[in-house]
Amino acid sequence: MTAAVAMPRLCRSAAPDSEHLPFDSMGLVKTLFPLARSLTGDGVRKTLHEIAKHIPLIIEEVPTGTSVLDWHVPKEWNIRTASIRSLSGETLVDFAESNLHVVGYSRPIRAIVSREDLAAHIYTLPEQPDVIPYRTGYYADDWGFCVQDTRWQAMQDDAYLVEIDSDLEPGHLTYGEMLVPGLSDDEILISVHICHPSLANDNLSGVAVATALARNLLATPGRMGVRFLFVPATIGAITWLAQNEATLGRIKHGLVLTCLGDAGRFHYKASRRGAEIDRTAGHVLAQSQVSSTLLPFSPYGYDERQYCSPEFDLPVGCLMRGVHGQFPEYHTSRDDCTFVTATALDESLEVVSKIVSTLQRDVFYERIDGRGEPQLGERGLYRAIAGQKEAGGASQMDLLWFLNLADGRHSLLDMAIRANTSFDRIDAAATLALQAGLVRVRIASRDPQR
Amino acid sequence: MTAAVAMPRLCRSAAPDSEHLPFDSMGLVKTLFPLARSLTGDGVRKTLHEIAKHIPLIIEEVPTGTSVLDWHVPKEWNIRTASIRSLSGETLVDFAESNLHVVGYSRPIRAIVSREDLAAHIYTLPEQPDVIPYRTGYYADDWGFCVQDTRWQAMQDDAYLVEIDSDLEPGHLTYGEMLVPGLSDDEILISVHICHPSLANDNLSGVAVATALARNLLATPGRMGVRFLFVPATIGAITWLAQNEATLGRIKHGLVLTCLGDAGRFHYKASRRGAEIDRTAGHVLAQSQVSSTLLPFSPYGYDERQYCSPEFDLPVGCLMRGVHGQFPEYHTSRDDCTFVTATALDESLEVVSKIVSTLQRDVFYERIDGRGEPQLGERGLYRAIAGQKEAGGASQMDLLWFLNLADGRHSLLDMAIRANTSFDRIDAAATLALQAGLVRVRIASRDPQR
Amino acid sequence: MTAAVAMPRLCRSAAPDSEHLPFDSMGLVKTLFPLARSLTGDGVRKTLHEIAKHIPLIIEEVPTGTSVLDWHVPKEWNIRTASIRSLSGETLVDFAESNLHVVGYSRPIRAIVSREDLAAHIYTLPEQPDVIPYRTGYYADDWGFCVQDTRWQAMQDDAYLVEIDSDLEPGHLTYGEMLVPGLSDDEILISVHICHPSLANDNLSGVAVATALARNLLATPGRMGVRFLFVPATIGAITWLAQNEATLGRIKHGLVLTCLGDAGRFHYKASRRGAEIDRTAGHVLAQSQVSSTLLPFSPYGYDERQYCSPEFDLPVGCLMRGVHGQFPEYHTSRDDCTFVTATALDESLEVVSKIVSTLQRDVFYERIDGRGEPQLGERGLYRAIAGQKEAGGASQMDLLWFLNLADGRHSLLDMAIRANTSFDRIDAAATLALQAGLVRVRIASRDPQR
Repeated sequence: MTAAVAMPRLCRSAAPDSEHLPFDSMGLVKTLFPLARSLTGDGVRKTLHEIAKHIPLIIEEVPTGTSVLDWHVPKEWNIRTASIRSLSGETLVDFAESNLHVVGYSRPIRAIVSREDLAAHIYTLPEQPDVIPYRTGYYADDWGFCVQDTRWQAMQDDAYLVEIDSDLEPGHLTYGEMLVPGLSDDEILISVHICHPSLANDNLSGVAVATALARNLLATPGRMGVRFLFVPATIGAITWLAQNEATLGRIKHGLVLTCLGDAGRFHYKASRRGAEIDRTAGHVLAQSQVSSTLLPFSPYGYDERQYCSPEFDLPVGCLMRGVHGQFPEYHTSRDDCTFVTATALDESLEVVSKIVSTLQRDVFYERIDGRGEPQLGERGLYRAIAGQKEAGGASQMDLLWFLNLADGRHSLLDMAIRANTSFDRIDAAATLALQAGLVRVRIASRDPQR
Repeated sequence: MTAAVAMPRLCRSAAPDSEHLPFDSMGLVKTLFPLARSLTGDGVRKTLHEIAKHIPLIIEEVPTGTSVLDWHVPKEWNIRTASIRSLSGETLVDFAESNLHVVGYSRPIRAIVSREDLAAHIYTLPEQPDVIPYRTGYYADDWGFCVQDTRWQAMQDDAYLVEIDSDLEPGHLTYGEMLVPGLSDDEILISVHICHPSLANDNLSGVAVATALARNLLATPGRMGVRFLFVPATIGAITWLAQNEATLGRIKHGLVLTCLGDAGRFHYKASRRGAEIDRTAGHVLAQSQVSSTLLPFSPYGYDERQYCSPEFDLPVGCLMRGVHGQFPEYHTSRDDCTFVTATALDESLEVVSKIVSTLQRDVFYERIDGRGEPQLGERGLYRAIAGQKEAGGASQMDLLWFLNLADGRHSLLDMAIRANTSFDRIDAAATLALQAGLVRVRIASRDPQR
Repeated sequence: MTAAVAMPRLCRSAAPDSEHLPFDSMGLVKTLFPLARSLTGDGVRKTLHEIAKHIPLIIEEVPTGTSVLDWHVPKEWNIRTASIRSLSGETLVDFAESNLHVVGYSRPIRAIVSREDLAAHIYTLPEQPDVIPYRTGYYADDWGFCVQDTRWQAMQDDAYLVEIDSDLEPGHLTYGEMLVPGLSDDEILISVHICHPSLANDNLSGVAVATALARNLLATPGRMGVRFLFVPATIGAITWLAQNEATLGRIKHGLVLTCLGDAGRFHYKASRRGAEIDRTAGHVLAQSQVSSTLLPFSPYGYDERQYCSPEFDLPVGCLMRGVHGQFPEYHTSRDDCTFVTATALDESLEVVSKIVSTLQRDVFYERIDGRGEPQLGERGLYRAIAGQKEAGGASQMDLLWFLNLADGRHSLLDMAIRANTSFDRIDAAATLALQAGLVRVRIASRDPQR
């Protein structure tokens, strides 16, 4: 955090209430679903406080107007009620029914508006006439409603009473942060966005998987720290980057998590620079039972856009199942708690955990005497695994590959890829060889910062 | 030009007559077609003077015997008339009918020759019995005729009167050169051969396209100079190289142009070294509507053989449509002014112009603040292009790619290739960003000389 | 050889008896077949003395217990007779019939053993019931018999008289070595194993091909020396490496030869490091008439495992036809002198000779004047090869490629690969150019040790 930007820390949740309870990812999605999230405001605050019941989150409040890179922290938006009523008093569209009904950052209004004038403020999806679209107008200084097309077509009165009880005032941008400390200053970054209102997959699935992962890692810290960010998209990531420029060098790997609750195949989008995280995620996905597709970097998507901007160029990729804009539920009221399943969340958690674990364990070994093959029989390693029998999770071939490539220049992942086996099997072989005194750890890791 | 080789400059055409007239490529092909070109002599001279009516050409005359690299400038060959007549006086083969009838560099002869002896000096194409082949014997000190096979088969007299009124005497090798100056000393080389007599595609199409390009560029000079060479093949290129060794470092990119008037697909043959020109030509062709094939370098073909010889190893490729030896009209009387079309010449000019323009504009930009995405909305760039609407020839994605890769290490072409879009769209995005004050030009270009 | 390990050289065969006789590879295989080879002992000794009749072999004897890298030279094993007899005196299994019948390194035994106890010492191949498997137990301190499954199933007595007259005592490990000297200290290593008893392909085919190659090379030494090793597998290679650590830098290329007598396609297994030998072997195989497959390095197989261990990482590949474990005759009594053919051995010798010859001749040339193409006509090289006619084994294109790439940075093999022609054709072009005074040898070779 730079000295120039001082800010209050509203809440550092102490021991979360549920620390010793099993964590229910799907339950968290359901709890958070109705909250009226936006870039800023009490919906975000409530969301973070809910997450903080499960992990010791630091919640940051950054004042409106704070200069962050090329941007300024915007005004804080809060909304209480909103509706379109007939002049006879019938409520036709109600924010209380779905917080998607109001365009994000709508300014307050209370007026009778002709249907013709109202039409310019109504957003529908004619091709999906029964769903409410999701729209925002953060910097538009306007107002609007998102409505099912069928409902809007049925509204044929000459005028309506339109009411939005919101305010857009100087306040704060709120985000959450948590570090699982590691043995070194190196860090893995996990970032999720928290600015979408009632959208389950595009928002809450990432929140739930990240929260579950953080809980698990707190119990099993590793070589590198793992830093979790719960931020409003774009401006939240930009704010965090602005406040942490001096220490960004610590980020050795990173993942943006999003849309991890649907039943589709996994998609991993590479970092801009072509970093170690790309190879690691690719290996873990290829060795998993799950279907997956690797995507090249592109400068459109989630907050990897910010982390991978040219000056920072952090080694951050993005893991998702459904790809933004490519599934019909995307940014509509269909992206609800039935679209996301506990099974999918669990599967996603397993993949993310495996990626983080692989990064943590991917070290370099060196044979103590690499001149020729060691006499495995003398060390009980030949009998143990002859005939391809397994010992400690590794076959004889895994061990031979490990011993052949343990020259201090091949990481365990390098070995697994060259041997066309899994990281876990090579890691198991490494453990056997370490126990037999055949190898030592050479260096902790290749520095992915180049 | 080295001090050792002084030579007269016969002609520096001043303001060409037709400077302000629209240029007719096909017209130039037709005008030049009947001239009796060879390695040297008045046919070449007349050709260059004709070109000089359209562009301010410098015409160089290099004396016979001048030492040029491993070679010497040969004697000058001129031919006035040639024929084979029956002893009864009937003209059976006449140079006046087609200058392909005489083998290039034939020595003079006037004799009655038996059919049997004559046969050793007759070249026909039995598989294409109605066409005249094209043959030369530059260093053979011999004479010969190229004849339609049907005509030769019909000549069954015992003897014929053979006459070639030529001379092979000390004189000069003639070539043309012109530089469109640029803002820097760097140059793009455009080279065409001018030594083939009545062959339209293999010779004159390149001449016409180069002349048209030169005219256009004179009106719009660029970052680099563009140097045009009109040279007899092999010995002409070797002579120019010998005279300009000290300044070859200026050549940053180059193209040999040939066979650009037929209706076939484009072929681009890569430089020996794998230079920037190869990537540029490949990109332009891939983004064009035209069909094209990329060929690897090989040491056989046109003057790229000389430019790409090991010590020079200049970054020069070769652009053609029909490939030498691979179309039936090649080196025959069928390669005439009906084989070449104005449409094909225009299309070729467009491709070559696009390649040169891309090279000229392929600079490096750098974000003034590359930390995060800039706030496009504030600068009128977000509204302009949201929803993939176009602004200034670029979409939102083009602009995002440009802003993401503008780090001073990616040229515009690097960006276009990575973004899988066209150079022009990325260049348009660059203009938008430059106008918005978001970027500056970092360095003029990567030096392709390595 | 390190000073610490002094050892007697038992035999340096002087002028071999058969020096001037034609060499019969298949005859050598047949002569060596019945000898009872193992890691150590008189079978190995007799084998080496037999080889020494054909080439001037140095035979090394290394005492039991000598420390070699991570290992110690084992005790020497010798066996005279072995049998299983019925209590009525009928001989059922007899070492004299096949030396595969006894598990290698079996300790002596003479006892009446119940069928039940005997069963734990019997090895059969139920899926190939009529063949004797090959098994060893070098470090097992046990005994055993390998028997046809049908024979074992027919043995249903309650007990048998088992006798193995062997001894396992301090002695020596024996191996053979020979250097064909070259013009420089650089060496090519050819290594074969000699520790398998009556197995023809997996053992003797390599021995025969290496012996034939050595004979041929003695008559035609080259730029580099060629060092031949005839060693027991694993411990023999380890012993040689231990004794020659100081001079391993001389090994610029190497090949392990094995299973070269069957009729199958060739397999070349790459070195660990990706060395020049891999490219050379791949080129020779691709340009040959024979079928072949390239295999990646793996740390399982023959002595390339030792040469390619991490600290040494020598540029050594492995050439074979049948791949260990992948042909049904492998490690059974079916791998006999009918499985190996003279034709296959001759073909293999030709391939190996071509690889060695290509390595020896793969030098760098440099054009004396690389500025432009030389005037070939003046040097009699244009007429000679115009129209793709051949001169000295090279076409015009071969010569043009050679002259274009002779810049001191492309070896002949680099040129052949880029020109998509054979090494021999490019080498022939080089000879033409050298005779014409157009090129000189730049440097002897690229150092493959990096």
